[in-house]
Amino acid sequence: MTTTVRTRVAIVGAGPAGLLLSHLLAAAGIDSVMIDQRAREEIESTIRAGILEQGTVDVLTGSGASDRVLRDGHRHDGIELRFDGQGHRIDFPSLVGRSVWLYPQHEVLKDLIAARLAAGQDLRFGVSALHVEGVDTDRPSVFATTAGGEDLRIDAEFVVGADGSRSVVRSAVTGSSTGGYFREYPFAWFGILCEAPPSAGELIYSNAPAGFALISQRSASVQRMYFQCDPEADPDAMSEAEIWDTLQARVPGTTLIEGPVFQRDVLRFRSFVAHELRRGRAVLVGDAAHTVPPTGAKGMNLAVADVVLLDRALRALLLEGDGRLVDEFAETASRRIWKAQHFSWWMTSMLHVAPDASDFDRRRQLGELRSVVESQAGRTYLAEAYTGWPLEGLG
Amino acid sequence: MTTTVRTRVAIVGAGPAGLLLSHLLAAAGIDSVMIDQRAREEIESTIRAGILEQGTVDVLTGSGASDRVLRDGHRHDGIELRFDGQGHRIDFPSLVGRSVWLYPQHEVLKDLIAARLAAGQDLRFGVSALHVEGVDTDRPSVFATTAGGEDLRIDAEFVVGADGSRSVVRSAVTGSSTGGYFREYPFAWFGILCEAPPSAGELIYSNAPAGFALISQRSASVQRMYFQCDPEADPDAMSEAEIWDTLQARVPGTTLIEGPVFQRDVLRFRSFVAHELRRGRAVLVGDAAHTVPPTGAKGMNLAVADVVLLDRALRALLLEGDGRLVDEFAETASRRIWKAQHFSWWMTSMLHVAPDASDFDRRRQLGELRSVVESQAGRTYLAEAYTGWPLEGLG
Repeated sequence: MTTTVRTRVAIVGAGPAGLLLSHLLAAAGIDSVMIDQRAREEIESTIRAGILEQGTVDVLTGSGASDRVLRDGHRHDGIELRFDGQGHRIDFPSLVGRSVWLYPQHEVLKDLIAARLAAGQDLRFGVSALHVEGVDTDRPSVFATTAGGEDLRIDAEFVVGADGSRSVVRSAVTGSSTGGYFREYPFAWFGILCEAPPSAGELIYSNAPAGFALISQRSASVQRMYFQCDPEADPDAMSEAEIWDTLQARVPGTTLIEGPVFQRDVLRFRSFVAHELRRGRAVLVGDAAHTVPPTGAKGMNLAVADVVLLDRALRALLLEGDGRLVDEFAETASRRIWKAQHFSWWMTSMLHVAPDASDFDRRRQLGELRSVVESQAGRTYLAEAYTGWPLEGLG
Repeated sequence: MTTTVRTRVAIVGAGPAGLLLSHLLAAAGIDSVMIDQRAREEIESTIRAGILEQGTVDVLTGSGASDRVLRDGHRHDGIELRFDGQGHRIDFPSLVGRSVWLYPQHEVLKDLIAARLAAGQDLRFGVSALHVEGVDTDRPSVFATTAGGEDLRIDAEFVVGADGSRSVVRSAVTGSSTGGYFREYPFAWFGILCEAPPSAGELIYSNAPAGFALISQRSASVQRMYFQCDPEADPDAMSEAEIWDTLQARVPGTTLIEGPVFQRDVLRFRSFVAHELRRGRAVLVGDAAHTVPPTGAKGMNLAVADVVLLDRALRALLLEGDGRLVDEFAETASRRIWKAQHFSWWMTSMLHVAPDASDFDRRRQLGELRSVVESQAGRTYLAEAYTGWPLEGLG
C-alpha cells in the first residue's frame, strides 16, 4: 500500500540545507514535506564542527532559524598560519570587516528540527527516498519507503535533493548517481576530540615539514585537533602518546595542552561537483551537489549559499510563476561553488605536504605562504574567501 | 703560458647581471674584471624581450647604467587576463601605484657594453671560464681560456658567477654543476616574431580551452606572440596559416592582426634554484642561480634584484671590511627568489592547460581566475608581484 502526500516542495534530506530551506519557504508561505532516512537521534548526534561565515550567521539569525550560534558559538576574528616555526595571524576585521563563528553544528540542528516540528512542518525521519520521477514535468514525485516498510509517494511542484554526498535525488538530475567533477587527495585528516583546555584562542593552520595540523577548539574543556595522515590510516592503531607526539611535532613553536583523547576518526578528502545542479523541477543543494576538502571550512557555508539562492528562485516560481531564477540557478550557484572549490583546493595545497612533493615544491610552498602573509592584499584575498563572499539572493 | 690579472672582483658572464654589477661596483670605486665566453656580437644579437619591473627601471636609470628603456621601451599600465571568452584588465597604477616597462633587452645590453668599455672596464669577450679555486680563502681565482687558446688567470678578492643557466662558477659554489631544486613543466612556448601592427595595446595572457597564449608587442611594426605547445614541438613543422589559426583560437573574443612570421622558436620551461647561492668568496646571481618559467616575467628582474643586493654586500666587505651582508646574502636573496619562483609557478599553473588536467582541474582553474579578477585584493596581490616587490639593498 502506498501513501501519497501532496505538497509544493519535496525536500529530501533533513541536514542543515534541507532544514534551513523548509524554514525559509515556510516564512514565504510555501509548504514543503521533508524526509530523511536517518532517525532524529542520529542526525542530532552527528558531531560536525563548523566554521560559519558571517553571511551564514546572518541568514540563520536574521531568518529566525536559529540564534544559538550567537550564544553557543564563538566569534573568531582571525586564524593563524604557522610555517617555518613562526605564526602569522590573519586578522579578519581589520582586513575585511567580517569575522567567522566556530560553533557545534549538531546543536543548531537540534534547534532547527525542534523549531520546524513546532511550526507544524511535515518532517519524517527514517524515510528513505528510492527514486524521483517527473522532473521534466510540473508535477515531479519522490518515491520513498518508511522504516516500517511502507511505500510513500510525495507529489510536489518541485523536488530538492538535500540528501548529502550519497544523494538519491542526484541520479534524477544528472542521469547517474555518481556523475560529477571530482578530485581525490593523497592524504586525510586524523581528528581527535580530547578533554583539555584550549591550546590557542583561534584556529592554527600549521604547515610543518612532517605535514599539516589544525589546532581547533570546541569548548573550555574539550578540544578538536587534526593532523594530516595517510588515507588508509587506522584511527585505532596509534597510542595517545603517539598522537600527541605527532600533533606537537606539527606545530613547532606552540606548546599543546594535552588531555585524554575520547574520540578519534580519519576524514578522507574529496572534491566533488555534480555535472548538473538542476534538471527541470529538481535541484541539488549542499553535499548532494558538491563536497569540498575541510581545509577551507566551506562545506556548510556553501550549502547555506545554495539554499538562499534556491529560496529566492522558488519564491519567484511558486508565488509569481516566474521561472527565470530557477532557470539560472545552476549557473549562478556554480560561480560560488567553483570559487569555493578553488579556495578549498588552494588552502589544502598550500598547507599540506604532498607525499610526492619535491624539495622544489616544498620551498615554493613556503615562498607562497610568505607571499601571502607578507602582503596586505594577499592576507585580504585569503580573508575574503575564508569569511565568505557576499551571498547572492538575499533579501 | 698563463696570463695573470689581478682585480678586486672577478665577474664571469657579461649578461645583464654581470654588466650591471660591474657598473655599480665601478661607481663605488671597486675594480672588476669581466669575462664572457661569447663574442660581443653574439651577446648583442641575442633577442630576449623583457618586462622590466618599476624597480629594475629605477636601478638602470638611477645608476646611470642605461636610460634607453625610457626612450625605446614602452610603459605598460596593465595586463589583460582573458578566459571564458572575456578579458579582465589588471590596472597596475590604480592597484599598486607602479607600472612595468616592455623593452628590447639586447638594446640595453648594447648600451651597457659600450658604456662599460668607454669607462675603461676590463671586459673580455670569447674567454671561457674553466674553473674557480680558493673560494674558501680571501684570494679566489678564476681560471679561463681565451678564444685563441691562451690560459688566463684572474686573481681577485671575490668571484661572481653571472654566467647563465650553464654556469661554470656554480660547481665551485654548490659542489656540482647541476645541483639544485628544480621542476620541469609538461609544456613549452611556441614563440613567433611577425611583421604586423599591434593586436593589443598591452599584454594579453589568455587561458583558452585549447591552451595558453600570450599576445605581446615589440614595436609599431613587429609583434611577439606565444602559444603553449608540446616541449618536443618542431618550430618548423607548422605552416604560417596553422600558426595563426592556433593563436587565434587561443584568444577567443580578440581578433589578431596577422602578418609574415619571420622568426619562430620553442622555449622550454624550467624552474631551478641552485642548492647554494654563496660559498665563501663566490656568489651566484641571475640565471646561474635560478631560472623561472617566463609566464611571470621575472627572469631579468630577479637578476637585477640579486645584483642590487650583492653590490651593497660587496661594498661593505671590500670598502669597510664588513662581511656580514655577504654572510647574509644567500638567505636574503632566497626570500625574493622563492617568492618569484612561486609567482612564476602560479601564473604558469593558473594560465596553462596541463596535458593531464581533469575536468575538475579545468573548472577549478577558471574558478581561480574568477576569484582573482573579481577581487580588488586578488588583483592587487597579482599586480604587486608582477610589478615587483620593493628591492632590498637599494641606497
